[in-house]
Amino acid sequence: MADERLVVIGGDAAGMSAASQARRRRSPGELEIVAFERGRATSYSACGIPYWVGGTVGSEAELIARTPEQHRENGIDMRMRTEVVAIDLAARTVTARDLEGGREYVEPYDALMYATGSVPMRPDAEGFDAPGVYGVQVLDDGADLICELDSGRVERVVVVGGGYIGLELAEACRTRGLDVTVVDRSATPIGTFDPDIGAFVAEAMEKMGIRMVFGDAVTSVETGAGGRAVAVHTAAGERLPADLVLLGLGVRPNVALAREAGIPLGSSGGIAVDNRMRTQADGVWAAGDCVESWHRLSGQRMVVALGTHANKQGRVAGINLGGGYARFPGVIGTAVTKVCDLEVARTGLSEQEADLAGFRYVTVSVDSTTKAGYYPGAQPIRVKMIAEKRTGLLLGAQLAGREGAAKRIDVCATAVWNAMSVDEVLGLDLSYAPPFSPVWDPVLIAARKAFEAVEADVRADARTE
Amino acid sequence: MADERLVVIGGDAAGMSAASQARRRRSPGELEIVAFERGRATSYSACGIPYWVGGTVGSEAELIARTPEQHRENGIDMRMRTEVVAIDLAARTVTARDLEGGREYVEPYDALMYATGSVPMRPDAEGFDAPGVYGVQVLDDGADLICELDSGRVERVVVVGGGYIGLELAEACRTRGLDVTVVDRSATPIGTFDPDIGAFVAEAMEKMGIRMVFGDAVTSVETGAGGRAVAVHTAAGERLPADLVLLGLGVRPNVALAREAGIPLGSSGGIAVDNRMRTQADGVWAAGDCVESWHRLSGQRMVVALGTHANKQGRVAGINLGGGYARFPGVIGTAVTKVCDLEVARTGLSEQEADLAGFRYVTVSVDSTTKAGYYPGAQPIRVKMIAEKRTGLLLGAQLAGREGAAKRIDVCATAVWNAMSVDEVLGLDLSYAPPFSPVWDPVLIAARKAFEAVEADVRADARTE
Repeated sequence: MADERLVVIGGDAAGMSAASQARRRRSPGELEIVAFERGRATSYSACGIPYWVGGTVGSEAELIARTPEQHRENGIDMRMRTEVVAIDLAARTVTARDLEGGREYVEPYDALMYATGSVPMRPDAEGFDAPGVYGVQVLDDGADLICELDSGRVERVVVVGGGYIGLELAEACRTRGLDVTVVDRSATPIGTFDPDIGAFVAEAMEKMGIRMVFGDAVTSVETGAGGRAVAVHTAAGERLPADLVLLGLGVRPNVALAREAGIPLGSSGGIAVDNRMRTQADGVWAAGDCVESWHRLSGQRMVVALGTHANKQGRVAGINLGGGYARFPGVIGTAVTKVCDLEVARTGLSEQEADLAGFRYVTVSVDSTTKAGYYPGAQPIRVKMIAEKRTGLLLGAQLAGREGAAKRIDVCATAVWNAMSVDEVLGLDLSYAPPFSPVWDPVLIAARKAFEAVEADVRADARTE
Repeated sequence: MADERLVVIGGDAAGMSAASQARRRRSPGELEIVAFERGRATSYSACGIPYWVGGTVGSEAELIARTPEQHRENGIDMRMRTEVVAIDLAARTVTARDLEGGREYVEPYDALMYATGSVPMRPDAEGFDAPGVYGVQVLDDGADLICELDSGRVERVVVVGGGYIGLELAEACRTRGLDVTVVDRSATPIGTFDPDIGAFVAEAMEKMGIRMVFGDAVTSVETGAGGRAVAVHTAAGERLPADLVLLGLGVRPNVALAREAGIPLGSSGGIAVDNRMRTQADGVWAAGDCVESWHRLSGQRMVVALGTHANKQGRVAGINLGGGYARFPGVIGTAVTKVCDLEVARTGLSEQEADLAGFRYVTVSVDSTTKAGYYPGAQPIRVKMIAEKRTGLLLGAQLAGREGAAKRIDVCATAVWNAMSVDEVLGLDLSYAPPFSPVWDPVLIAARKAFEAVEADVRADARTE
């Protein structure tokens, strides 16, 4: 019998990182760890599912970093295909349901780790709960979708929503030779990018032969024989035939269980946590897609569903649960994706986000190359920078380009993180050699132009005052 | 007749960046600009020469960013094939020699921009001034070398010195199908890398079929018919036959003219300049390979010959010469190179440099991949980090890997620049998606391991106290 008992809800990145870290610091005699997972897999890369669907990744096993058996060998009591259906904060117990046998049972905890992830957003409209409408979030969803696509029944796919996952799934289906249409309410895909960068994405999708229906919204899913989805209808009156409808509107934190139990949520809809990943309920910790993070630049609370944060937050929670000290330092909205051979990335605030947070700013975009212009294989890259007026503080950056473009966003992210001004960024000692960069790296060119724009703005204001 | 006169010595990156910036800010009526260049080209990429020699870059013209004619159109009086042979600080004049006609003449200046670059290091030993021994520094050197290689006379090449340029030239000659040997005094190539990273470089060179003679020094060049180099002799008694000997020992600042004129040098041997690129001689400015910079981490003065610094320093000097305000913020020793398909990069201090600067530190190395392990095309990458004991300050990083590895050094460079601790680096919001990174980016994994090493060191010390 251990001194204490940790119960973990959710067996993917956040939950199992926490469990593993706690296990490293406290022996099974000190801390018993029980982890519940309703699916068939643990510690897998949800972000890799679209690549598995498209065939870029060959098998489900490749996406799994650690199996239930490996966790068990590590001294974690891993209960698979078991869903936690209730939490009693006062009694410090959870009610678990064995999804195979149907048995329900109650387990006590001293500490509870809540890591239930997210669920795909699903419009509250007619037909969206019909068979043939798929949201892809967990590994089992991927398996179901592949099974459907392999059946040969599917020729036409409509993706509702042009977010990251929507576009990745659209590309995966197109790679499989299917007829794919993406419908989205906004003017350009991936709403977290400014429209000028989003336009590159739309162009790349169209070049792949994907039909993009933008500035239009899906109003209902039409069902046919057996109640199965057969078409999608839009506000503009289009009827798009579909053998399969995929949800690509993004995700929301999976907090139903927490809300029911009385674990406080934040204003963004995610579970409210402090720097050490403690919720406001005694003894309850949370991490991953289900919690809200704070944005270091805007100060705002937001939910960011991303594997890298889930891993880091899980690690932080686990160190603290194990008696150590660690804190999660917040986010700055860094993201990257690949659409065919186009790479796009962002960090900090977009123009719209900067507006919302009350910043006044200047914006510049520069076109350059990923290597010296004369070096073979040099690829085009566009760098957009948003800098605060007067101070020149780098508020955000967005990139679009071909191979070798996107990862440059990390320099911008590190600069934003450190609250550098564009003038300071311009001075950075970045690596240079012809196979890797022009003599002025594209990031430095953008910073130089942004600095000039900030100065020009100051001069313009001086003249009008 | 202009109000003032700027004379520029040296028509490459630093000199012409300065001239162009000054021209942007002051009209020809305000400032006359005369620039002297002893070669045939202006504003070219010296770093690109090895790729031109190897045939990766097709022509000299591709390496030229701006021709003499373009500078003249921009209102700069560009005097080609003209060498400045003397500076009179008291009289504020320079003596110029027309290398074609031989005529010498005196030109007055109000401000002088000294941007003479660097010269290859040449051992003070027998035979190193013989025909057939080449140092490659300026564009005309590249043309001469290509002419020699195209003659068909050259089969065996010995490169003396395994620095960046030495290795790049060795690869270029090997690409041309020649028999290439590199000799260097140290145990591994590129002395600015720690030996564990240097070993990867040696391996990559050997895989290309280049013979690496390390831990041995060249003592003399043997000459044959017509006084031409025919072999190289080493301290260990080897005689290496050579139809061509290339200097790859690195470069030293080209300061002979400055020294003669009485422009003060710094302790590193480069021209001493302040933050705005002013020398200690009244009215004289300097930038590029010939000046010394300060290292932001060690506080030491050093000469770094690199096109990116030359451009930035020239820009800074030119803004100041034009009546504006700009300063060069120092360097942190970032560098990158490619050896066959191996990419290596460094920033901050190496172990040896950290020792010299008096730091006590821990070191970690981690092996990871450039993309998610399951994503096609994921390449190996090793990240080494050096962190100060107790504080965890990131002192330096070195990377070695295949495609997509090297540019990650810029994240480390930005972190070093901002004096981040490895614990802070670990929290950075870097971009993640399977085509670009494992869920923990290799840089973050290294930071995590370095942080653990710093903590373990503190605990070990506590036990022994």
